Amino acid sequence: MATEKVKLLGFVFSPFSRRVEWALKLKGIDYEYVEEDIFNKSPLLLQLNPVRKKIPVLVHGNKVVPESFTILEYIDETWKQNPLMPQDPYARAISRFWANFTEEKVLDGAFTALIFSTGEQQEKALKSTIEALEHIEGDLMGKKILGGESLGYLDIAMGWISYWLPIWEEVGSRQVLDPSKFPATISWMNKFLSHPLIKDNLPRRDKTVAYFHGRRNFFTSG
Amino acid sequence: MATEKVKLLGFVFSPFSRRVEWALKLKGIDYEYVEEDIFNKSPLLLQLNPVRKKIPVLVHGNKVVPESFTILEYIDETWKQNPLMPQDPYARAISRFWANFTEEKVLDGAFTALIFSTGEQQEKALKSTIEALEHIEGDLMGKKILGGESLGYLDIAMGWISYWLPIWEEVGSRQVLDPSKFPATISWMNKFLSHPLIKDNLPRRDKTVAYFHGRRNFFTSG
Repeated sequence: MATEKVKLLGFVFSPFSRRVEWALKLKGIDYEYVEEDIFNKSPLLLQLNPVRKKIPVLVHGNKVVPESFTILEYIDETWKQNPLMPQDPYARAISRFWANFTEEKVLDGAFTALIFSTGEQQEKALKSTIEALEHIEGDLMGKKILGGESLGYLDIAMGWISYWLPIWEEVGSRQVLDPSKFPATISWMNKFLSHPLIKDNLPRRDKTVAYFHGRRNFFTSG
Repeated sequence: MATEKVKLLGFVFSPFSRRVEWALKLKGIDYEYVEEDIFNKSPLLLQLNPVRKKIPVLVHGNKVVPESFTILEYIDETWKQNPLMPQDPYARAISRFWANFTEEKVLDGAFTALIFSTGEQQEKALKSTIEALEHIEGDLMGKKILGGESLGYLDIAMGWISYWLPIWEEVGSRQVLDPSKFPATISWMNKFLSHPLIKDNLPRRDKTVAYFHGRRNFFTSG
């Protein structure tokens, strides 16, 4: 039932658990947030998500839902107020298509390029990330499905770009979002970040920068 | 509207377009099938799916939907007869979780292990594929969500295992599905393959084996 207790296992610097928090807050759902140490996983996390062993995990009564996009759909189907997904099947398909594309090509690509790698691997990942962002700039931005007056599934799925990507650029000392080439994307990012629900629900910038500096040093040293 | 013409761009040996065909047939939807040469992509494919440039692509009237899982959800939301997805949000979440897990860990893993790689990369992929299958055998098989009297989303999403995986094992000359360790999975595979809708909608086995032998030779030579 929609009245059972809700708990979210997350990690403060993770865009994956943060997007679930955005959805829960947008729906006005009370939840208990449990911070996980992703470098020393708790018995609770391993028990709740033995297959993936990853945050985020949503616990709703005795139901356990892992994986952020699957959680977003579960939240939207369980609590009907403030719908995340459009109602039209085609608009829903477009939302899922771009959410998955951004996750695979921009998030993975940008993390590889800016945090994880150096040299040839970094250059290759930079190139493919920028190409993916060009598709988003040209084919998606300006469509009604994104950046409307109320936040939707796709805004929430892609919202990490607004905050994490500039931080990763700073940490990796490389630019992917050249403002002269991505005006529509940057306009959407600014609008997203200025949303009251989002701007008050972000990790502290200085701590986030420091965390990802640490990750970059770890991955690229030695 | 649900009465507009339906066209599917696919590739005969692809499990991704085949699963869309299974869903269309299960729903009783008339469609035109267009075979794509994935080694020499048609202007039509590049025009319809400029972002991913991949099959399958479903065209429904003037609406274009790429990506097989996104297409399955679109089909299920557009044509309500013979539902693929369960109605309960938690059962839907479980379906999506296991479909995505199988795609990422079993399909990618098995293709890498049995078709794409040799040596250390192959051994690593074999190990992770078998581990993923062990999760499926232990945690998923026997649940009501799979292998019911009527085929559902998860059966269709995972159905490739029944036909492609044994072919890939033959081509790669390695076993991942030891029958003594995967009795429930193999029982589900046999049931799935014996379904009238499935057994009459598979590529010819000898040609499929020959095609993947060709791919393995291409990837592992030189």
